[in-house]
Amino acid sequence: MVVSGPAGVGKGTIVKLACQKAQGNIHLSVSATTRNPRPIDKEGVTYHFITKKEFRSMIEQNEVLEWAEYVGNYYGTPRKPVEDALKKGQDVILEIEVQGAMQIKKNFPDAVLTFVAPPSREELERRLRDRGTETEEQIVSRLQTAEEELSRINEYDYIVVNDTIEKASEDLLTILRAEKLKQKFE
Amino acid sequence: MVVSGPAGVGKGTIVKLACQKAQGNIHLSVSATTRNPRPIDKEGVTYHFITKKEFRSMIEQNEVLEWAEYVGNYYGTPRKPVEDALKKGQDVILEIEVQGAMQIKKNFPDAVLTFVAPPSREELERRLRDRGTETEEQIVSRLQTAEEELSRINEYDYIVVNDTIEKASEDLLTILRAEKLKQKFE
Repeated sequence: MVVSGPAGVGKGTIVKLACQKAQGNIHLSVSATTRNPRPIDKEGVTYHFITKKEFRSMIEQNEVLEWAEYVGNYYGTPRKPVEDALKKGQDVILEIEVQGAMQIKKNFPDAVLTFVAPPSREELERRLRDRGTETEEQIVSRLQTAEEELSRINEYDYIVVNDTIEKASEDLLTILRAEKLKQKFE
Repeated sequence: MVVSGPAGVGKGTIVKLACQKAQGNIHLSVSATTRNPRPIDKEGVTYHFITKKEFRSMIEQNEVLEWAEYVGNYYGTPRKPVEDALKKGQDVILEIEVQGAMQIKKNFPDAVLTFVAPPSREELERRLRDRGTETEEQIVSRLQTAEEELSRINEYDYIVVNDTIEKASEDLLTILRAEKLKQKFE
């Protein structure tokens, strides 16, 4: 399952809560990135921090499931951990942005695309400012990106409105459960 | 939502339990039929019992959403109660057989088709005999119909295996919840 949504919408929090509730049955993919770690970042938890040279080598070796450039840096999903988790029968969640989501959908038609939407644009801006991790310039840039992302919402299979993280995390789990009851045509 | 499945699979029980859990948010459609009431039947609860003349008149007046002939009798879904429930914002479950399900899917592409399957053919036969409501001849006829119905399972969107009524009723509710999170293209 791919989970996308504008920065500040709270998708990280609801995905983490859903994973906790699923008690080990969900593997949360950790993206690789070339951006600099922020103070709150933890190598291997929030991201794998690698160099641009390393990232380009992974692309060449077909070791990323999807990748995109975003505000001057690369972001991508390492292939192996995802494939290992699927082999173990775990569900996998990729928390990635719209460009990457489209690559996943193209290469894995069975992937379920879920968009986490804010209750309103005003609420999104408020949450983004409340994080306090970005400069005003970055916030303006993120709000523009959010508009672009919201305009792609119709590419997604499901929409979860993040009113409360409790409800939204339950919604993610409901989607995963229902998808398993779906008839798959092979 | 249409719920189908072979006679004896326990779909009536799991649908009833799902409706109880949903506390009034699900309207369970009551079919009209021309067959004779059995001892366990209750007018307006298990079926609306009407004459063949009345049934034909309903068909002519476009007052049934779907109908089918089955073992020499008519069965159909009265239109008005369903439309009234949808207007009130309730979910509606139609517990109908495969022919009727196909009519619903054709006329209402948004309808969700769920097939309740037995854990195995042997278990289905056991449940059918345990009901004790049919003659041996009727049981043989129902098992034949069950085979025909199982062969149409791939027309359905979701498959719920009735291992336990608790799990299966939760599955129905999960499907209804997930369908509301689905992006609808109008």
